[in-house]
Amino acid sequence: MTVFLVGAGPGEPDLLTVKAANLLRRADVVVHDRLVSPEILALAPPWAELVDVGKRPGGSVQQAGINEVLVELGARFECVVRLKGGDPHVFGRAAEELIALGNAGIACEVVPGISSALAAPAAVGIPLTTRLAASGFTVVTAHQDPATDRSLDWEALARLGTTLVILMGAARAAAFRDRLIAGGMDPLTPVAIITDATLSTMRETRLRLGELGVEPVANPSVIVIGAVASLDLRSFASARLEAMS
Amino acid sequence: MTVFLVGAGPGEPDLLTVKAANLLRRADVVVHDRLVSPEILALAPPWAELVDVGKRPGGSVQQAGINEVLVELGARFECVVRLKGGDPHVFGRAAEELIALGNAGIACEVVPGISSALAAPAAVGIPLTTRLAASGFTVVTAHQDPATDRSLDWEALARLGTTLVILMGAARAAAFRDRLIAGGMDPLTPVAIITDATLSTMRETRLRLGELGVEPVANPSVIVIGAVASLDLRSFASARLEAMS
Repeated sequence: MTVFLVGAGPGEPDLLTVKAANLLRRADVVVHDRLVSPEILALAPPWAELVDVGKRPGGSVQQAGINEVLVELGARFECVVRLKGGDPHVFGRAAEELIALGNAGIACEVVPGISSALAAPAAVGIPLTTRLAASGFTVVTAHQDPATDRSLDWEALARLGTTLVILMGAARAAAFRDRLIAGGMDPLTPVAIITDATLSTMRETRLRLGELGVEPVANPSVIVIGAVASLDLRSFASARLEAMS
Repeated sequence: MTVFLVGAGPGEPDLLTVKAANLLRRADVVVHDRLVSPEILALAPPWAELVDVGKRPGGSVQQAGINEVLVELGARFECVVRLKGGDPHVFGRAAEELIALGNAGIACEVVPGISSALAAPAAVGIPLTTRLAASGFTVVTAHQDPATDRSLDWEALARLGTTLVILMGAARAAAFRDRLIAGGMDPLTPVAIITDATLSTMRETRLRLGELGVEPVANPSVIVIGAVASLDLRSFASARLEAMS
């Protein structure tokens, strides 16, 4: 009786890990978030129960409620797959679920997934790091309000010199812009917004930091800020191929 | 005729993506780094040529040489898999290969992989982010010498408040320690060193920032610095299970 906390990756079913796909195929029950696609859930056997803890008519299920569901199912079934978009430990609240399951004496295992922080820039030709322009990357979220959040040092974030990736930041994009510019980041810093990364509905917007949040940002989006955000390495190949055809 | 720049993940073959495994199975030729395991290379068909560009009797192949090999093979074969440890865009120099291939008019596609920056902490029970202790994470490398590297703002890095992950930092661990402490990071900040992450040979060391680099760090290791590095969420479950047995 094990609960597997499994990363579902950025969206495209083929970007599941082999391990995640195999676990889904033998799951007795799948407890999933709102963002996990129907194509991925279809890998579970027809008799597996699918429990959506991402949305309810009366609003989202609270984390404590999800923990309770996992403990209850973990005690009843051989193989419970708790499926989370991206990677379980990248803003997936896996720690809280691991602690709840551990306290209940239920075995659990984390299976990492491709975070959209990495997959979204790759999908639009942006290298997260390059030897010349970006010696690292930082991933943050906007769970809390950037206007009041004291858990991050915004001035340090603005000065750092790594590529900055913001997950779940659509609603607070303007607040991120203001805090970063106030921290000293150049308003002309390139920005890319990638929506529905790796899915057929994927779209992208390129702009400058000073313009971020002026237009509403669609949800779910990955926001990439830094020199690399102006690059599109896909165009090298496609431009050449067009010229040759 | 396409060159696929494919992330091989952290080491365990089941942590390949489904897409990566499928591409390997139909590869005409696989161009791989030193760190890619034999089990993963064994997925390629018996007739596929394996080209190791990670080591040579006379030392490493230079990047320009790898680019040339890829352009040459990309012009000759239908399906060339360029296999890199972890994710191609996380210090994998994918950008340079994409540009070389693009300039040569050869189609290419990036297939993301699980970075050891995410998989290594997960494998030893460390949550990269948590709601309480870490509102983000930063990944840097030690390609250059931290003692002289000006591409990073070390003071900002020390102050940032996100979990810090250092890849390929074994040889320069002491320099990282000195720069971070000089930047204002507490010498008592927890540190975890994870070697051979996700493989059967995996081992871990827990220490404090002030002790980092006093003993040599094995290669390849992932170094995690921050409050979360003292956690081991595996022990909740295992301690309970032991008590029950």
